[in-house]
Amino acid sequence: MKTVSIGSLKIGGKSGGAGAFPIIAGPCSIEGKAHYLHTGNFLKDLGIQVLRGGIFKARTSPHSFQGIRESALEWLPQTKKDLGLPLVSEVNDPRQIEVLDDFLDCYQVGTRNMFNYELLKELGKTKKPIILKRGFAAMIKEWLLAAEYLVQSGNEEIILCERGIRTFEPLTRNTLDLTAVAYLKQNTHFPVIVDPSHAAGDSALVIPLAKASKALGADGILVEVHPEPGKALSDGDQALDFEGMRNLYHSLQDKPSIAPIYKNKSEVQIQV
Amino acid sequence: MKTVSIGSLKIGGKSGGAGAFPIIAGPCSIEGKAHYLHTGNFLKDLGIQVLRGGIFKARTSPHSFQGIRESALEWLPQTKKDLGLPLVSEVNDPRQIEVLDDFLDCYQVGTRNMFNYELLKELGKTKKPIILKRGFAAMIKEWLLAAEYLVQSGNEEIILCERGIRTFEPLTRNTLDLTAVAYLKQNTHFPVIVDPSHAAGDSALVIPLAKASKALGADGILVEVHPEPGKALSDGDQALDFEGMRNLYHSLQDKPSIAPIYKNKSEVQIQV
Amino acid sequence: MKTVSIGSLKIGGKSGGAGAFPIIAGPCSIEGKAHYLHTGNFLKDLGIQVLRGGIFKARTSPHSFQGIRESALEWLPQTKKDLGLPLVSEVNDPRQIEVLDDFLDCYQVGTRNMFNYELLKELGKTKKPIILKRGFAAMIKEWLLAAEYLVQSGNEEIILCERGIRTFEPLTRNTLDLTAVAYLKQNTHFPVIVDPSHAAGDSALVIPLAKASKALGADGILVEVHPEPGKALSDGDQALDFEGMRNLYHSLQDKPSIAPIYKNKSEVQIQV
Amino acid sequence: MKTVSIGSLKIGGKSGGAGAFPIIAGPCSIEGKAHYLHTGNFLKDLGIQVLRGGIFKARTSPHSFQGIRESALEWLPQTKKDLGLPLVSEVNDPRQIEVLDDFLDCYQVGTRNMFNYELLKELGKTKKPIILKRGFAAMIKEWLLAAEYLVQSGNEEIILCERGIRTFEPLTRNTLDLTAVAYLKQNTHFPVIVDPSHAAGDSALVIPLAKASKALGADGILVEVHPEPGKALSDGDQALDFEGMRNLYHSLQDKPSIAPIYKNKSEVQIQV
Repeated sequence: MKTVSIGSLKIGGKSGGAGAFPIIAGPCSIEGKAHYLHTGNFLKDLGIQVLRGGIFKARTSPHSFQGIRESALEWLPQTKKDLGLPLVSEVNDPRQIEVLDDFLDCYQVGTRNMFNYELLKELGKTKKPIILKRGFAAMIKEWLLAAEYLVQSGNEEIILCERGIRTFEPLTRNTLDLTAVAYLKQNTHFPVIVDPSHAAGDSALVIPLAKASKALGADGILVEVHPEPGKALSDGDQALDFEGMRNLYHSLQDKPSIAPIYKNKSEVQIQV
Repeated sequence: MKTVSIGSLKIGGKSGGAGAFPIIAGPCSIEGKAHYLHTGNFLKDLGIQVLRGGIFKARTSPHSFQGIRESALEWLPQTKKDLGLPLVSEVNDPRQIEVLDDFLDCYQVGTRNMFNYELLKELGKTKKPIILKRGFAAMIKEWLLAAEYLVQSGNEEIILCERGIRTFEPLTRNTLDLTAVAYLKQNTHFPVIVDPSHAAGDSALVIPLAKASKALGADGILVEVHPEPGKALSDGDQALDFEGMRNLYHSLQDKPSIAPIYKNKSEVQIQV
Repeated sequence: MKTVSIGSLKIGGKSGGAGAFPIIAGPCSIEGKAHYLHTGNFLKDLGIQVLRGGIFKARTSPHSFQGIRESALEWLPQTKKDLGLPLVSEVNDPRQIEVLDDFLDCYQVGTRNMFNYELLKELGKTKKPIILKRGFAAMIKEWLLAAEYLVQSGNEEIILCERGIRTFEPLTRNTLDLTAVAYLKQNTHFPVIVDPSHAAGDSALVIPLAKASKALGADGILVEVHPEPGKALSDGDQALDFEGMRNLYHSLQDKPSIAPIYKNKSEVQIQV
Repeated sequence: MKTVSIGSLKIGGKSGGAGAFPIIAGPCSIEGKAHYLHTGNFLKDLGIQVLRGGIFKARTSPHSFQGIRESALEWLPQTKKDLGLPLVSEVNDPRQIEVLDDFLDCYQVGTRNMFNYELLKELGKTKKPIILKRGFAAMIKEWLLAAEYLVQSGNEEIILCERGIRTFEPLTRNTLDLTAVAYLKQNTHFPVIVDPSHAAGDSALVIPLAKASKALGADGILVEVHPEPGKALSDGDQALDFEGMRNLYHSLQDKPSIAPIYKNKSEVQIQV
């Protein structure tokens, strides 16, 4: 069983091992400096070790928010350093790699790009760890062959991420395929994490799905958080608010102790 | 939240309540008296409170074993009484109800019959609890409307059972839809249990899926067990052997204590 | 290649043969005597040789119209004889066979009952031809094995009917699987017809899908017609009105001649 | 109804219009100069007006043939000019556009790239027509929104191409969704063509599916041809050989006349 590190967070390795359950959390999209710091400081205080946040977004409609994109470069690299949390973000185009490679700690290949082999070939040349999401209609075998593209290009620091597949069911955004996660845990050495937010499409379902993922033996989760989900520029329905995120975090600790007293220092201090 | 009882086993009710996690276990098919007693005694000793076992089987091919069927009537009612465990079995035809109603404790509607409305109308007239499996391609809404057929006919003692849905993925028999279970736990008052055996189609995946189901908040599981899965007359690939069943049972107890010393008395005593 | 006859209509046999393209048409549900005669006379005048019409309906909700059911027996057998068109109707329960067998010319097994093996075993004992619809999530192999249940019980007069499968696409009711029809035409000797009405769920799509089915080499179609689709008791959205049915009929003739002058005698004469 | 032209071939426009049924044909992959000329001359002689052929291939496994790629540049532009047929080829990466734009007549966006929005944004800036294949798990609405990405970037010369969707059925490679084509013909002004080769995955099914597509009202087809399908470097199972292509071509003419006498001049003359 391989261990992949993002900053100080170790994902994978000996299953059933001691230690906290790895959680990568953050907004669907980074919406600006204040939003980034507000969310990032909250998560850091909570104990989260790696932040996620979209810069270049792949949206179904060209009329939807496409991410802050290149404008992030002006402030994000320095602000990220100030915050002190490693950052995971999605890459959609081989040409974005050089833009992101300076300050990103881990690339995410989103569900729509798992089959984007030219992108995978280029990403495989980087030295950064890569979260490879399953295509929403990708067979397990195709997913592993996408990972093989990365391996062939020289990068084996791969974390597989199940995020729900497309089925006939209209009531839930996707169908989280934990059968596949169980299968992969027995048949591949790559770490396998779960994104319950996209699977559910509904914040109310995120916590039960996250608990199930942990109990099943997944190596961690990737979850969306927003200070005000109702105002999120993308995917607000599935984002946990801070209260929900606190609940999730504590529900996944092996020994839930007494609820911590939150001073929310960082939430107060933001003055941007 | 409704509680449905099968014998002394209570399923559903206040979520998060104390008490053991409900497990219904037994062979896919009842293969004969010795097989029934062997499996039943093992499960009873283990602490299982309700037995499952197919009498009339719905098989994809007419050339596959169709169940022991009417021949069970000669010995099963009395043997079941001797064993002392309530029995759940599938009903595939309205005309089977009168055959089974004398000694069955709970009807199971299998995945292929969730849309068999004439059967549901007749079952609704019985007073027995009913495990209503989801059709493998049924939307959640259709599943609830199938339950409504039972309710309309007078029976509300319904336990919904998620058993995997059909998707594009060929490596696993079905895709267990825990997103649906999470959804139902928040949107219906019926108890919802999970059948990890059919979802996986592979005994190696049953334990992780069962753990995930419990952590998610499901109200119990329905699992297939066979003394020698390799010789089972139906669905052997997904059946746990006794060792696997013991592991499953203990992994689902809230406080796994020291492994019990098994005397296996009943296993030894069978002389049929 | 097998030929199956319903009354004087021959379905299947040498492909590419001369002769009209077999069309079975009629309402989703028989709604009453006047409705039956009105529709039946129109279709008979048009040249349709076999009528379809539901008596026992399988509906997703118990609150939807369930068919005229046993009440049809009072008038339908005689009225059918007066009209002079063979009748196809769905059977949902083994106990309905003896009710229907006296006057039905062909049984239809609906999409929800393709997996109802106890029903298939009983139907196989009848001597009537059987239209076996594909389960909406049935693999081709499972469909052929359902046919094998009929064959094993003694009835080989089977017409396979593709009626659309369930996929992820929400804009159309089902996805008509003509790839499967092409496959079956090359790999089974049973006649294969298409139901474009259920596949589409929208009358506007019925004519193009029917034309495609004929060009592909299907052995016929089964199509829903209603004098006033907006007032139909079931599935009105997909029913053709008389005008649409006329267009469909003429578009499927090999040599569309000058449009016939319609006197609509029978439509005028109904006095019930 | 919009008309999009590739060279002299007009696709779309008034439906039901006179004239030949548009067929774009060629190998899955261009395998070399001799192969290109051999196939191209055959198709030209047959009457095909536009050639297809992959240069950069998107393959599920990194160990499969990835296309001749940049090496094609040495000879393809001039050879294409000599042959005198417009060429359609797939583009998988925004960086390939400048390589291909000099000599390609039409871009194809493959099924794996329909969701590659960064690619679509760049392609929209070109002036060439674009065949936009449906993602194999894309909803019709998502497909139209992908087209909207092209439109927003300035290019409306779009031809939609249905090529089969992924379903639960394992016997056929994909399920050709002609219901979607019928829907689109009534709800969008873009031309809609069909790729029966990928839908079927089996050359034996290509001709019936092509005929069905024409009868349905599709605006043309895109079909794979190889001189020796058994030796093709990619997707040989679904490629027609020259004999099959001749049959297909003639079966799609409105008035199939006497079979032409084939001199196959070009087939003989190739000396490369």
